[in-house]
Amino acid sequence: MTTKALIEQIHKKKSFLCIGLDTDMDKIPTYLLSEDDPIFSFNKAIIDATHKYAVAYKPNIAFYEAYGIKGWKSLKKTIEYINHNYPEIFTIADAKRGDIGNTSAMYAKAFFQELAFDSVTVAPYMGKDSVEPFLEFPNKHTIMLALTSNEGAFDFQTLKTNEQELYKTVIEKSKSWKNSDQLMYVVGATKAEYLGEIRKIIPDSFLLVPGVGAQGGRLEEVCKYGMNKDVGLLINSSRAIIYASETSNFAEIAAAKAEVIQGQMAEQLESL
Amino acid sequence: MTTKALIEQIHKKKSFLCIGLDTDMDKIPTYLLSEDDPIFSFNKAIIDATHKYAVAYKPNIAFYEAYGIKGWKSLKKTIEYINHNYPEIFTIADAKRGDIGNTSAMYAKAFFQELAFDSVTVAPYMGKDSVEPFLEFPNKHTIMLALTSNEGAFDFQTLKTNEQELYKTVIEKSKSWKNSDQLMYVVGATKAEYLGEIRKIIPDSFLLVPGVGAQGGRLEEVCKYGMNKDVGLLINSSRAIIYASETSNFAEIAAAKAEVIQGQMAEQLESL
Repeated sequence: MTTKALIEQIHKKKSFLCIGLDTDMDKIPTYLLSEDDPIFSFNKAIIDATHKYAVAYKPNIAFYEAYGIKGWKSLKKTIEYINHNYPEIFTIADAKRGDIGNTSAMYAKAFFQELAFDSVTVAPYMGKDSVEPFLEFPNKHTIMLALTSNEGAFDFQTLKTNEQELYKTVIEKSKSWKNSDQLMYVVGATKAEYLGEIRKIIPDSFLLVPGVGAQGGRLEEVCKYGMNKDVGLLINSSRAIIYASETSNFAEIAAAKAEVIQGQMAEQLESL
Repeated sequence: MTTKALIEQIHKKKSFLCIGLDTDMDKIPTYLLSEDDPIFSFNKAIIDATHKYAVAYKPNIAFYEAYGIKGWKSLKKTIEYINHNYPEIFTIADAKRGDIGNTSAMYAKAFFQELAFDSVTVAPYMGKDSVEPFLEFPNKHTIMLALTSNEGAFDFQTLKTNEQELYKTVIEKSKSWKNSDQLMYVVGATKAEYLGEIRKIIPDSFLLVPGVGAQGGRLEEVCKYGMNKDVGLLINSSRAIIYASETSNFAEIAAAKAEVIQGQMAEQLESL
């Protein structure tokens, strides 16, 4: 998918919501466990109910890998279901991959070709030649960790490297990599004030922002510092939406949650 | 597997060789492609031929993921084959994973429980709470990237953070993490001189060293700087062994390559 098509979808749906499919057998309604593929059944219900309010879905690959071959099958069915029924939706394989060049090329093949995702998240520790193989695929996007939303973000990402924090150096260096226009960045919303700093380095790139939750206040703050003329934001919510209810109408309740967030996003878009 | 059992195996086999199973459909002998599971057939032949000379096998997970469900099946058969037939062998899932706590816990489940590997490689960028979930599994080992062997290692890993390079800070901080005695570290052999520096910080930990190739000279240098009283080294070779020949006796030729390296390692062990 082109960035242009993503932006058009955002304006059409008045939403920049990404729904994280961190689908966990221990958390989905128990009556689904008797189904042939409970994870896919859950995802399908969530996707059918929420697709009007979301512009992106982000399966968290760990949750599928944890179930081995069975989990990989659920993942494949999920991405095929989205691509077939809602081809306008931007898909993110949240995989945090990254290795030496020939190995990263294999990961890129796995997520861009075998599974046909539009994008994949990657980790920057191994540098340029660990990320560039992902950037070789036209109209595919590589979403690199910059500043994450967890406590451990302050272990290394905010260390001063010469003049500035590591995450800023990571972002800055990545701008010179081949096909860097296909890069997006993960920036945790627990640090909305950092978004302004990041926008000075990459005014035009899309940011994938986890950790907002369902609170309108934080959304407003993230938009204040992070939004650009093309919106430039995908805000992810996982558990607050998909596990909003454990009853048989979990999908409708998830949709209601998503609709509330979409409404808040529509307000923010008016200010553009 | 306990570290003690690994050390015993090293002394018994007079080897600290790890063989990387970067099994690529485009590189294995073409006659194998007509088999039901060419990747597993290749791995099985390599393992049967080389297990006397190696103490560890390291499937590179990207190479299996690239083939989707089929690849995941080949991976599962491979690890089950090793665990069943050669239970003394230390197994490494080379996966370079790392995410927020609950997600890392799922990756740990995938590799330690679902696939029953002894260890997994992880990336440190997301800090303490992204690595500790892996360390919760008793007698399992977490092999964290410190200084990698690729060109991109110099993009961020060697940046000065306050007083010292990032990779040193990564190693130093990790020592305070819970169950850090189950940590090992990836240190590329392209920088043998750095091994001495690293040994000052972690004299006792095992180091997984890629990038040695088949040259005896580099092996000697790595041992000079990196070996400790318990050996403390696992030296990986992938392509130089497994793709030594494309003929029908590829496995014997791989074994001959492995035997040469094992012989060089035996010499190094005599100096202990």
